[in-house]
Amino acid sequence: MGFVDRLVAAVRAKNSVAVLGVDPQLDSLRAPGLPQGYTLSEFCCEIIEACAPFVVAIKPQLAFFEARGLDGMRALVDVLAVARTHGLLTIADAKRGDIGSTSAAYAEAFLGNGDFACDAVTVNPYLGSDALAPFVARVREGRGVFVLVKTSNPSSGEFQDCPTPQGALWEIVAQRVHGWGSDFLDAHELSPVGAVLGATYPDHARRARELMPHGIILVPGYGTQGATAADAVAAARPDGLGVIVNASRSLMYAYLKESQKSPGEAAAAAAEAMRTELNAAMHATRQ
Amino acid sequence: MGFVDRLVAAVRAKNSVAVLGVDPQLDSLRAPGLPQGYTLSEFCCEIIEACAPFVVAIKPQLAFFEARGLDGMRALVDVLAVARTHGLLTIADAKRGDIGSTSAAYAEAFLGNGDFACDAVTVNPYLGSDALAPFVARVREGRGVFVLVKTSNPSSGEFQDCPTPQGALWEIVAQRVHGWGSDFLDAHELSPVGAVLGATYPDHARRARELMPHGIILVPGYGTQGATAADAVAAARPDGLGVIVNASRSLMYAYLKESQKSPGEAAAAAAEAMRTELNAAMHATRQ
Repeated sequence: MGFVDRLVAAVRAKNSVAVLGVDPQLDSLRAPGLPQGYTLSEFCCEIIEACAPFVVAIKPQLAFFEARGLDGMRALVDVLAVARTHGLLTIADAKRGDIGSTSAAYAEAFLGNGDFACDAVTVNPYLGSDALAPFVARVREGRGVFVLVKTSNPSSGEFQDCPTPQGALWEIVAQRVHGWGSDFLDAHELSPVGAVLGATYPDHARRARELMPHGIILVPGYGTQGATAADAVAAARPDGLGVIVNASRSLMYAYLKESQKSPGEAAAAAAEAMRTELNAAMHATRQ
Repeated sequence: MGFVDRLVAAVRAKNSVAVLGVDPQLDSLRAPGLPQGYTLSEFCCEIIEACAPFVVAIKPQLAFFEARGLDGMRALVDVLAVARTHGLLTIADAKRGDIGSTSAAYAEAFLGNGDFACDAVTVNPYLGSDALAPFVARVREGRGVFVLVKTSNPSSGEFQDCPTPQGALWEIVAQRVHGWGSDFLDAHELSPVGAVLGATYPDHARRARELMPHGIILVPGYGTQGATAADAVAAARPDGLGVIVNASRSLMYAYLKESQKSPGEAAAAAAEAMRTELNAAMHATRQ
């Protein structure tokens, strides 16, 4: 079954468009990397298990595993295994992209069958079409691809908003995403070649939906980065499909604000609340 | 000692600007992943040891290690250890870039002190300044950064050449690289914040040198990708500094064309020939 079919089935079964970002931070002052007594793997897996009823996918951020070396990569393998056990889709937030033969190796790493394989991966468009083709080719094997179009960070406009005769750079990228994905539409008229569009730029999200009528949009920036639920679902289609919304720190570190709960209990409560908020915002948009 | 000082010392000691790209391919038809009887680690380490007298650095391509899962990442640790034993600088060809807090974790992974730490890393500019700041900050700890400006692949122009009112996108990125690096000039008037500029676009390289008078330029695309030695050193300064040139497959797979030699022997001969060719091209340019 294709990536879109599996994602849509999960969205309907759980009545949720929420994604759990698995981002075990490193900074022990602002956001403890790991609670006392937990291993990296235990901490992440407890939160994944607890959130599983309320989210459709996990999105592990590769950086936080790579920063911990071989131990981190072993924990990533555990994280992916526990997610699969709970029927969650997996999205490698890797933001990879390289010349063609190298991108083919990255596609093997994250969309193949090895230790780090996921259902989908995030990719960076700066190198152009031939760099993304090996990822897009994996769509035929049931995988998904999310191309960075407009990211959630403060300086995303520095290059992404550069004006060109065909529109801002990010709009050109969005048009290409539409083109790359148009061969792979499923019964819902959705494509497994989607885009990353930060919730912190909701006006861009609406414009992006016009440029990419079929792409599934992965929306980061909800929660800690400050976007509201209405911002996060700005690119949803009228049928409520086409958008999934990620939150990382606001779920994983919810226990810091609720000292009577374990990390898993606090994350589950935050994930359930996130689901409710996003559904309410989606409903309000459709009125 | 800073990255530039160490690199310049190596260039002078070895009379070489060559870099060994450690790219153990996956495709067993066009370019065998591993010769029969070799482990991944043995194959890579034999070639690194053999090439050490002729190259200043190794540039492991992360994709080819990640594609092999945990075994691949363990081999990467071996590769970095053997390079350090032979006094070679290490450049993680990772092309990372993410929102600030995530880039900080990538900087920890590749420019910190952990299992995958190197002397320098390649990064992708699409997310803008705040995504690159955590890498640039590591310059104060003696590390180097190479920002993708104009890549060597056929479709690199698709976005990188987009015209804007301030020039092509890649020229704007080059100007930013100059800005990010201008606080860190060493005695040679070189900056550890450099750029990746594909040898396959020598005209761009000359223009890039004007825009980034101080940046060390890492040049891929020499050898298998088809650029000549003259193309590869097009951005060198008159003093012969400021450029390092990578070759990967043409060194690692030299043994395929010389059946009487081991992979290490064939790679060493190819690396020595590459050094000679690059020096001759540099000398011709200065006439």
